[in-house]
Amino acid sequence: MKVGRVIGSVVSTINHEFFDGERLLIVRLVDQGRDTASYVICTDVVGAGADETVLILDEGTSARQIHGVDTGPIRSVVVGIVDDIHEQAHTP
Amino acid sequence: MKVGRVIGSVVSTINHEFFDGERLLIVRLVDQGRDTASYVICTDVVGAGADETVLILDEGTSARQIHGVDTGPIRSVVVGIVDDIHEQAHTP
Amino acid sequence: MKVGRVIGSVVSTINHEFFDGERLLIVRLVDQGRDTASYVICTDVVGAGADETVLILDEGTSARQIHGVDTGPIRSVVVGIVDDIHEQAHTP
Amino acid sequence: MKVGRVIGSVVSTINHEFFDGERLLIVRLVDQGRDTASYVICTDVVGAGADETVLILDEGTSARQIHGVDTGPIRSVVVGIVDDIHEQAHTP
Amino acid sequence: MKVGRVIGSVVSTINHEFFDGERLLIVRLVDQGRDTASYVICTDVVGAGADETVLILDEGTSARQIHGVDTGPIRSVVVGIVDDIHEQAHTP
Repeated sequence: MKVGRVIGSVVSTINHEFFDGERLLIVRLVDQGRDTASYVICTDVVGAGADETVLILDEGTSARQIHGVDTGPIRSVVVGIVDDIHEQAHTP
Repeated sequence: MKVGRVIGSVVSTINHEFFDGERLLIVRLVDQGRDTASYVICTDVVGAGADETVLILDEGTSARQIHGVDTGPIRSVVVGIVDDIHEQAHTP
Repeated sequence: MKVGRVIGSVVSTINHEFFDGERLLIVRLVDQGRDTASYVICTDVVGAGADETVLILDEGTSARQIHGVDTGPIRSVVVGIVDDIHEQAHTP
Repeated sequence: MKVGRVIGSVVSTINHEFFDGERLLIVRLVDQGRDTASYVICTDVVGAGADETVLILDEGTSARQIHGVDTGPIRSVVVGIVDDIHEQAHTP
Repeated sequence: MKVGRVIGSVVSTINHEFFDGERLLIVRLVDQGRDTASYVICTDVVGAGADETVLILDEGTSARQIHGVDTGPIRSVVVGIVDDIHEQAHTP
């Protein structure tokens, strides 16, 4: 999993019943509290809002289990809102 | 998923029945509306045209579900045309 | 697999029974004993503590086998504590 | 899929019957007609020659379908020779 | 697959029967004969020694087939020792 920050959403029609009513969040990946150069478009099972720090799971099989479906064309999903992070400083 | 922009197409004969009549789009990945250094060759289920902003799904199992096939040698597919993006500015 | 160093932990509620009681470790990837710019959030089957050097396995099917479960929305897991590394210097 | 250019081949004995008689091509990934810093070792189903521009498919399940086998320890395969590319210039 | 060079080994106890007696090699990825900034920890089916140039296969399903097991928490495996490489110079 990775830590990310919700920075927006995408409106797009996807012709597959799985996406009916699904929000598509833009999540900027975060490292040590700072934005990185990567993002991912995620579905969401926790109702994350703008600017919230979240956990992202990025594997198809896992994403389907989190959504509670056997099939479904998904790979990246917001699985939790981050309540707290305990972390040493990065010493590159 | 990722956001991309259709920048072209590739003509190539692939000796597998799945590709009969399939267009192969070149999609430049986009971040905050700007081109990135990455691209991917995608099949397409939405009829995307040149310069259109699209959503790309990049997992084999998901791609096959989007195409509605049980088997098929595909991994990356254009699943939707992006109608709107709501996004905060990137602060690296 | 990759070598990493445990630099912290994340507190987040994930609404899936697999995660009940699971710790989520932040593991900085390491190369030649030095921190890299990448990290991954892992589950843990060895009770790794802060600052310990560990082995990370990053594939869903493998992660489920390490946890001894048939299903489970996981991909990255700490599988061992590193006792010793024998390594030539890196000559880029 | 990605576009690549065949730049060589590797001779190596792999103790698995799948590889008997298989050529292993070194394919440099290409973007906008220019070499990138990445390459991949591929099997080949189209008889690609040195310096030819090709399409690479990089997923195990897809690679096995392209080779027409149910099992086989492969992931990256040259699936087609590129006849033509229509592409806008990259504006990073 | 990728080409790599064996630069060391890791000693770590992994509580899964698959790893009983398995060596864990540190393999530096190589491009055009030069070390890159990436490495991977691999199992080994060919008895590769220090400094040998090898082929690495990095997919779980393939790795299990190479080891001849139906299950097993592995993803990256040394599948062959490289006997010869024929390669054009890289022109970035």
